[in-house]
Amino acid sequence: MPRSETARPVFTAYADVPPPVRGQVRDLRLRWAHEELGRDYRVEELDVYHPRPDGYLEWQPFGQVPAFDDGEQRLFETGAILLYLGEQDPRLLPPEPKARWQAITWLFAALNSVEPFVAQIGALDFFHAGKPWAAQARPSALRLLEARLASTEAALGDKDWLAGQFSIADIVMVTVLRILDHTQILDSYPKLAAYKARGESRPAFRHALAEQLESYASPAN
Amino acid sequence: MPRSETARPVFTAYADVPPPVRGQVRDLRLRWAHEELGRDYRVEELDVYHPRPDGYLEWQPFGQVPAFDDGEQRLFETGAILLYLGEQDPRLLPPEPKARWQAITWLFAALNSVEPFVAQIGALDFFHAGKPWAAQARPSALRLLEARLASTEAALGDKDWLAGQFSIADIVMVTVLRILDHTQILDSYPKLAAYKARGESRPAFRHALAEQLESYASPAN
Repeated sequence: MPRSETARPVFTAYADVPPPVRGQVRDLRLRWAHEELGRDYRVEELDVYHPRPDGYLEWQPFGQVPAFDDGEQRLFETGAILLYLGEQDPRLLPPEPKARWQAITWLFAALNSVEPFVAQIGALDFFHAGKPWAAQARPSALRLLEARLASTEAALGDKDWLAGQFSIADIVMVTVLRILDHTQILDSYPKLAAYKARGESRPAFRHALAEQLESYASPAN
Repeated sequence: MPRSETARPVFTAYADVPPPVRGQVRDLRLRWAHEELGRDYRVEELDVYHPRPDGYLEWQPFGQVPAFDDGEQRLFETGAILLYLGEQDPRLLPPEPKARWQAITWLFAALNSVEPFVAQIGALDFFHAGKPWAAQARPSALRLLEARLASTEAALGDKDWLAGQFSIADIVMVTVLRILDHTQILDSYPKLAAYKARGESRPAFRHALAEQLESYASPAN
């Protein structure tokens, strides 16, 4: 195996997913981070419809993607992997303590204070679509989400990025907000919508998304 | 103000909460971490039933507790605060890279891959109790949770703690599992139940819980 094969970090992604989920799977967050750094990576594809390969649960105990391995650390959880990458490069996580901890705080906020409420709307609209109880559950789920979005928008204010400079917190928050793309919910939060568009217009994001979507269109590479 | 007043880290908690929530509010996680280190702290109490004090949203944008300030960093998000405390003391986060990243991975897993599913059951059972749609929503929420619990139990295996030694990951996972105390769900996961009991039997946890419960019983200190 040529040295470049072993030197590149590897992470897992699905070989294909149903159309509504394309552009949403979390390997996008790692692709984006690597593209921001101009760092090469290798993707190991899993079949979402089949059992995980032997030993995969020792790498990713929940059987999901992405799991990450750079030869130094073998990690799962997008948040942990992004923090690991951020510690290696100030373009993803500023090293100055105050800025660093603001970015880390917002990384956790995106994952624990915003994503669960966004994901709940996604689950009701996609996985439970058409079930009468899902329609009845939605208004209260929407109220909870709206409170989180209003708070996030207020905290963002007129800043371009959550922690001042672009960071891993924005990679998560922007991709979390994209889960609402099938709705008009963000229309009520113009600063948040502009923030999401700002993230999506970064060349690294566009490359990452194109790579992910292309991987679904092509046979296993 | 005596120097000890300014030197102690401060975090926020609620002066009182409804009985089912007592012993569950997230300041417990910070109290536990501080007790593990034998480190003094001061609690600033907020009235859960009244608007937040002026300026609080600049400290904690979602208006929740705990927010933390040690004079160096002014943070919110329990996960970020625990990571911050962990970086200061190997008793909460081992400094050796492999062990450190395993603990951080499990910290994120507890917050993003387990807590949202536990919290969903909690929300259905407490906030939406009695609504017909909540009863219909529960089976699928329970199936999702059971998959996460089974994966967590398998990953824990015969280890005492998620990352080998006790860490901030266990502070979060144990307090997440406690959200299920009104159910018998954990009975089906004996290793996870024993793990939770192991956490709850630590003197630091017992002190932290007693402090939190006492604070609800007493007038503002």
